[in-house]
Amino acid sequence: MQQLPEGSITSPAGFRAAAVAANLKYTDRLDLTLIVSDRDCSAAGVFTRNQVVAAPVLLDKAVLAANNRTIRAIVANAGNANACTGATGMANGRAMQAETAAVLNLGIEQVLQLSTGVIGMQLPMEKLKAGIQQIAPLLAPDHGIHAARAIMTTDTHPKHAAVRCSLSGGDVTIGGIAKGSGMIHPDMATMLGVLTTDAAVAPDLLQELLGTAVNASFNRISVDGDTSTNDTVLLLANGAAGVSVTTAADRQLFEAALTTLCVQLAQMIVRDGEGASKFVTIEVTGAADDEAATAVAQTIATSPLVKTAFAGSDANWGRILAAAGRAGVPLDQTTLALRVGIDQSNELQLVGNGTPTAYAETDAARIFAAPEFKLRLDLGAGSGHAVVWTTDLTHDYVSINADYRT
Amino acid sequence: MQQLPEGSITSPAGFRAAAVAANLKYTDRLDLTLIVSDRDCSAAGVFTRNQVVAAPVLLDKAVLAANNRTIRAIVANAGNANACTGATGMANGRAMQAETAAVLNLGIEQVLQLSTGVIGMQLPMEKLKAGIQQIAPLLAPDHGIHAARAIMTTDTHPKHAAVRCSLSGGDVTIGGIAKGSGMIHPDMATMLGVLTTDAAVAPDLLQELLGTAVNASFNRISVDGDTSTNDTVLLLANGAAGVSVTTAADRQLFEAALTTLCVQLAQMIVRDGEGASKFVTIEVTGAADDEAATAVAQTIATSPLVKTAFAGSDANWGRILAAAGRAGVPLDQTTLALRVGIDQSNELQLVGNGTPTAYAETDAARIFAAPEFKLRLDLGAGSGHAVVWTTDLTHDYVSINADYRT
Repeated sequence: MQQLPEGSITSPAGFRAAAVAANLKYTDRLDLTLIVSDRDCSAAGVFTRNQVVAAPVLLDKAVLAANNRTIRAIVANAGNANACTGATGMANGRAMQAETAAVLNLGIEQVLQLSTGVIGMQLPMEKLKAGIQQIAPLLAPDHGIHAARAIMTTDTHPKHAAVRCSLSGGDVTIGGIAKGSGMIHPDMATMLGVLTTDAAVAPDLLQELLGTAVNASFNRISVDGDTSTNDTVLLLANGAAGVSVTTAADRQLFEAALTTLCVQLAQMIVRDGEGASKFVTIEVTGAADDEAATAVAQTIATSPLVKTAFAGSDANWGRILAAAGRAGVPLDQTTLALRVGIDQSNELQLVGNGTPTAYAETDAARIFAAPEFKLRLDLGAGSGHAVVWTTDLTHDYVSINADYRT
Repeated sequence: MQQLPEGSITSPAGFRAAAVAANLKYTDRLDLTLIVSDRDCSAAGVFTRNQVVAAPVLLDKAVLAANNRTIRAIVANAGNANACTGATGMANGRAMQAETAAVLNLGIEQVLQLSTGVIGMQLPMEKLKAGIQQIAPLLAPDHGIHAARAIMTTDTHPKHAAVRCSLSGGDVTIGGIAKGSGMIHPDMATMLGVLTTDAAVAPDLLQELLGTAVNASFNRISVDGDTSTNDTVLLLANGAAGVSVTTAADRQLFEAALTTLCVQLAQMIVRDGEGASKFVTIEVTGAADDEAATAVAQTIATSPLVKTAFAGSDANWGRILAAAGRAGVPLDQTTLALRVGIDQSNELQLVGNGTPTAYAETDAARIFAAPEFKLRLDLGAGSGHAVVWTTDLTHDYVSINADYRT
C-alpha cells in the first residue's frame, strides 16, 4: 500500500471536482462543491444514527435504496445543514439534486448530496442554484482539495488523503476528503466524508467494506460526545482502473487500504478537534469482550473531567478510573492497571491492582504535557480490546462553542 | 411544611456536630467533622453505582447490612477520598471508624464514615486520629453548619437546610447538609449528603423513603456527567421528637418534606456547580414514559455543545434537538416542540413540529442570557415526564478542572 502525497477524491482515475464561493452563509470562502465521476459508480453510504435527521440524509438514503449502481455526482455545501427544516427543507434538497443533475445532464437519481452547518435555517436557494451553475464548467481532475476546503465549517484546515494498493488485476487508488471538528462522537459516521475509488466493486460488497472501514475509524473518534443530524460517509467506485475487487485476497487488500485511509481521515478530524491541544490514544485491554472494551474507552474519551485533566497536563488517573467505573460494564477495581506513554516502547505504569504504583509525578507530568500521548487501561478480565482517539477539553473549545452562531 | 432559617443536620432534636481543621490536605480550613446522635438511630444509605468504589462506601455498606438500627455517629473528612487505596485504604477506613467509636464510647458498628477529595492517596492517619480526638469535646447542638463547611472541596459555599412538618403525633424536623460541585451526574447520589430527623422511622421504611427522595432530587442534577467513587447520602432517624412515622398519611407528609429538603440541597449543588454561571431547568414532556423522558432530559443536560451554548447565552435550539435525537429513545422529529422561559407564565416557543417558529431572536437571546431559565421539550408521543437541573459549561469549569490537583 502506497500513500499518495496531496491525495484526495480526485486521485482515483475518472473523478473530477470543483468548488466555488456561493456565499451561502460565509462570505469569500469556498462553500459549495461538486464531485463528479466520468462513468457510473457503485455507491455506498453510512449515515448518522441520530433520530433528528437532516433532509440530505433522508434524501441520500432514498437515492441509494433506489439506485446504488449508476451514481455520478455528489453536491455538497457548508454553512447550512438543511436540518430541522421540515417539508420545505426536503423540497430544497430535492431542488439541489435536480439542479445538479440538470447542469451535468444526469438523472436526478444519479446525484447524492451533503450539507453541513447551522441547523434550522432554510437553504438560500437562489444563491445555491447560481453556485451550481457556476461550478459545472470548473470541474477538473486535480481539484479534489478544493472540495475538501469547501465542506469545512469550524475546521481549521482541509482533510484529504489517498492510498494506492496493488490487487491481482493491477493497481487501484482510493481517495477521500472529510470535515468535522465539533459534534464528533464515535456513535457512527460523525462527520462528512466522501471516498472515491477507481476500482470496480459491486454495490453490496462496497457497502460491506465501507461499514467495516468506518467502524474501525470514524466510529473510534470522539471530540465532544455529541452526534450530528447530518453525519454521512459516501463511497463511490467507478471502475476506471479496469480492476475488479472480487477474489478474497483482493478484497482483503482493498479493505485494508480503505481502512487505512479512513483512519487517516478520522485522526485528522480529532487533531483538528474544536479547541484541541492534545491528541490522545485510549486503548483498553483485558475486557470481557471488544464491546465492553469499547464502552470503557469511549466513556473515558468523553468524560469532561478526564478531558480537562488532559488540558491541564494533569496525570489525574483517579478520574480515568472513575470514568471506567461508570461505563456500564462489569469491572473489578482490584485488577485495573493503567499505563501511559508517549510511545509504546516507553510506558510508565501509574496504577496496578487498582492502586497507584510508586511512579514519579514528574515522569507522569512529562507524558501528559506532550502534544500526543497514549493511555492503556487493562481491566484484567479477558481478551477484549479497543482503541479510540480523542482530544482534551480546553478553554478554546468553550470559546468556539459559546460563540459559534454569533 | 415549614422552612427553618439556617437549618442543618442539627436542627432535629438530639443531634450534635462539630468540625476542626485537621490539615488533612488543606491548611487552615475545616476538613474533619463528627455528627452524633444522643440516641440510637435507624439509618439508611444510598451509594454510588460507580464500579470503582471508595473504601468508605464499602465500609458503610457493610455497617448498614449488619446494623441499621443503632447508628450513633458519622465521621467525615474532605481533601482525601480514600478511593483506589486498596487494602491499606480499607484498614485506614476501619481505623477512622474505630477511633471515632473510641472517643464517643460507641461500638464500631455504630459509626458511619464519609470521605471526599483526591483519589489514590492514603489518609494521613496521625493527623486524622489527632483531629478526631480534638473534635469530640466540641460537639454542640448548633454546629451543623460547621459540618457543612468541613465536607466542602471545590464547593464555594456550604449547603444546608432543614424543614419541619406536622404529623398526626406532632411536629418532626428533617435537616441536611450536602457537598458537591464537580463529578456531578444524575446516575445516583452523586455527592455527599447527610440527612437527620428526630422522627422515629423503622429502618426498612427509612431506606424506602430515602430512595424515593434521592431519585426525585440528587438523581436529577448534572454538572458534568461524571459520577464519583464516593457518592453517598446517609439518613439518620433518632426518634427524639417522640413522633413515629407509621400511618400512610404521615408517611406521605414525611416523604414530601424529605423530598423537598433533598431537592433544595440538590439544587444548591447545581447552583454551586464548578464554573457555573447559569441554573437551567430542563423539562421533557410527551415522552412514551417517564424513563424515556429522563433519558432525553439527561442527554440534553450533559451535552457539551448544549452547555457551551448556555454559557454563550446562545439560543441554539438545534443543539438541543440534536442531543435529544441521540438519547437512545425512539423519537419523531416532526412532533418536537421546544419552549423556553424565565418563568412558566411567560414561555417563548422556539420549535414546533420539529422546525423553528417565527420567534424573534432578541426574545430568545434575552431568556438565554438570564441567570436562571427553563427549557421545555415536548416529544408529542405520550405522557412521560421528567425534570432535571443543570448548569452551563464555562471557561471557569475548564480552569477549575485543568488545575485541581496542582
